[in-house]
Amino acid sequence: MAGGDERSVTGAAAGQGTPMRLGRSPARQHTLREHNLVLVLQHIATGGALSRASVSKRTGLTKATVSSLVDTLVQAGLVTELGPEARGAVGRPASALTLNRAGLVGLGLEVNVDYIAVCVTDLAGGVRYLRTRLGDNRRQSPGRVLGRAVRIARTAVDAVEADGYTVAGLGVAVPGLVEAEQGLLHLAPNLGWTDVLVEEFFASRLAPPLPVTVDNEANLAALGELWFGGHDGLTDFVHVSGEIGVGAGVIVGRELFRGVRGFAGEVGHVAVDRDGPRCRCGARGCLELVAGQEAILRAAGLTGEAGTSMGQPGGSVAELLARARGGEPRTLQAIEAAGRGLGVAVAALVNLLDPSTVVLGGLYTLLEPWLRAPFSEELSERVVAQRWSPVRVLASRLGPDAAVRGAAGTVVKEILSHPSAVLHGAAHPEGG
Amino acid sequence: MAGGDERSVTGAAAGQGTPMRLGRSPARQHTLREHNLVLVLQHIATGGALSRASVSKRTGLTKATVSSLVDTLVQAGLVTELGPEARGAVGRPASALTLNRAGLVGLGLEVNVDYIAVCVTDLAGGVRYLRTRLGDNRRQSPGRVLGRAVRIARTAVDAVEADGYTVAGLGVAVPGLVEAEQGLLHLAPNLGWTDVLVEEFFASRLAPPLPVTVDNEANLAALGELWFGGHDGLTDFVHVSGEIGVGAGVIVGRELFRGVRGFAGEVGHVAVDRDGPRCRCGARGCLELVAGQEAILRAAGLTGEAGTSMGQPGGSVAELLARARGGEPRTLQAIEAAGRGLGVAVAALVNLLDPSTVVLGGLYTLLEPWLRAPFSEELSERVVAQRWSPVRVLASRLGPDAAVRGAAGTVVKEILSHPSAVLHGAAHPEGG
Repeated sequence: MAGGDERSVTGAAAGQGTPMRLGRSPARQHTLREHNLVLVLQHIATGGALSRASVSKRTGLTKATVSSLVDTLVQAGLVTELGPEARGAVGRPASALTLNRAGLVGLGLEVNVDYIAVCVTDLAGGVRYLRTRLGDNRRQSPGRVLGRAVRIARTAVDAVEADGYTVAGLGVAVPGLVEAEQGLLHLAPNLGWTDVLVEEFFASRLAPPLPVTVDNEANLAALGELWFGGHDGLTDFVHVSGEIGVGAGVIVGRELFRGVRGFAGEVGHVAVDRDGPRCRCGARGCLELVAGQEAILRAAGLTGEAGTSMGQPGGSVAELLARARGGEPRTLQAIEAAGRGLGVAVAALVNLLDPSTVVLGGLYTLLEPWLRAPFSEELSERVVAQRWSPVRVLASRLGPDAAVRGAAGTVVKEILSHPSAVLHGAAHPEGG
Repeated sequence: MAGGDERSVTGAAAGQGTPMRLGRSPARQHTLREHNLVLVLQHIATGGALSRASVSKRTGLTKATVSSLVDTLVQAGLVTELGPEARGAVGRPASALTLNRAGLVGLGLEVNVDYIAVCVTDLAGGVRYLRTRLGDNRRQSPGRVLGRAVRIARTAVDAVEADGYTVAGLGVAVPGLVEAEQGLLHLAPNLGWTDVLVEEFFASRLAPPLPVTVDNEANLAALGELWFGGHDGLTDFVHVSGEIGVGAGVIVGRELFRGVRGFAGEVGHVAVDRDGPRCRCGARGCLELVAGQEAILRAAGLTGEAGTSMGQPGGSVAELLARARGGEPRTLQAIEAAGRGLGVAVAALVNLLDPSTVVLGGLYTLLEPWLRAPFSEELSERVVAQRWSPVRVLASRLGPDAAVRGAAGTVVKEILSHPSAVLHGAAHPEGG
């Protein structure tokens, strides 16, 4: 057969978790080596202290190839050798390989309506730093709020760098519709912001500069739950985040489903009462007006006004929870109404998208003991496939931290998927 | 590097539209040949009377390989040579290759609430037979209705076989939630059917037996629109079918999005009035109760009862259209209410799935002149991304025929994707 273009074959195989052996020219050799580097790194990431020999066996690559690749990963600070250990009765003691948890880390920020959160995550997903600063971000310019976020990020970077970590990049979660490629926040209804170049803002203000990505907080919360939520084998679900806004992140086959233009999952603006009150988005009767944090607080007789939900007397989520635990009727009614509204909107989501599992996240994780029954009743009545294929409802393990964990996680996952980007200091031995 | 398992590489590349050259053993040679066979066939299908030399140029395969593959396809009756034509100034006259439109055909059936339709499609998607038999299928056993469908299918098969065609398979569209792998209809609310083994019914009653697949009619209507609707370059859209039931088929990147369990797109049971009347599905205030065919007829003062919509005086869609054209106020109000309800539900769909285009199909194609304005107004108010990324609204080109065209089309598309299944009579020369 004739020789020819193999780029598509190479590209199509790159994510398959099998060794690649198509290289003929230097350019192909490079692609091949990158592929096998990812393969080895991902086996080390998920394998739990493997020896070089075990990596060779699991990947199908020769021991010499594995050793060369491991050397590169160790030099780049991505992998650590735990030192020789006698693991079998016969032969040389094997050295166990793990991700280096003391080197590169990912920085995540969540700029939400009534708080800014920051998180630093090591390569294995462990949390090295996590803070939430309460404060109302409405009625303030984007520049002022994002400027505060920059200072919060710098404090976090200083703290972890003093501990010897190196920050590799920044992921930012924002409560609105994001054009991910440009890092442009088109619209954040609850902040009243339109057309904010979030990526550019952070990229130009961090010194030394870091690679920056920006995404919707509900999307990042779903990814955080997928990566760090500890739900073994959960590959398909919808994560519904209750905050002041309500959003959903849709995970299909361990991947985020973004829709055609990147704006999927806007469950907070599904109509649950089409002739209801006007929402900040311009529509009527949106889910947020009955199941958003402010709406629940207000219905419970707490003030629920801008900025009052953060620990102030008469307006806090803590107060809401205390009253719910005490069985206070108006509070229980408010949560039930939220659960029913949420059930109507999520039933629409399930009828349209057909996920098998719904994860209740954010505020809903805290309210789950009271929210679950009315929510599940609405699902049972309204989901067409419910009789023979009921939707599973789970509470998030990460709660309100899911989005910032996901934001930091995107940096780490990017390193593990494209390690060559951080190999600049490391040698590139030939062969592979 | 060590030799090893290349199956994943082969598998990953199979859909890429590039030649494959990985074969080393007979098993791989077979996979390779199958891949290149599909490649050549698909170039012939979309290329418009290509010569062997053009196919070789476009696929990157050698002329000898192309000739061997084309011979196989011609012997199997999938491809026709139009005979030598002088196409250039220099060299031998080239023979133009096209799909054989006089050989294998696909049979489609649509068993809907108030009609059964049948369609036969040639390999190029041309309609060779199309009939719709009106008749109320409610209050009848599934066996009785499907038995009538078998007779309608036999009549169609006899007619096209008399014209020299060979029926290669049957695709069946049904108005309910289908487990596609088993061909099991779980629930068809408007027929009142549950757990009907549709595939088994047809497979056991057709002589000679045909391969049978079963799918939801809204899914098949979306695929029909994708394949045969003549929308050039439209790769992502939601097709909303108005019948007695209302369903949606979601196309993302030219593929049907089925959801995790296969039940995505049930827009007819999205709540547009959560405390509204009870639907046949058990929920309250579903879209079908305001925008389904019966609901529209009844709101317009036509009887709209079971079976009255099919050409009978006082109940027909034809009468509805005549009154709308005449400007009859109650009819216009009924269509406007349907358009608004449809807008509320489709806005939820757009906020959740983020398609860039909505195609109005089935009955809505006919009502589009009156439906579009109220429908689009609701979308404009309710879709969060509408301001900077408005959803495009198109009318279907196929209207109520989309589902049965899609059903017949699945048979033909299966042949073009897996031609080896019909090569039994053809030789399998070595090499590829």
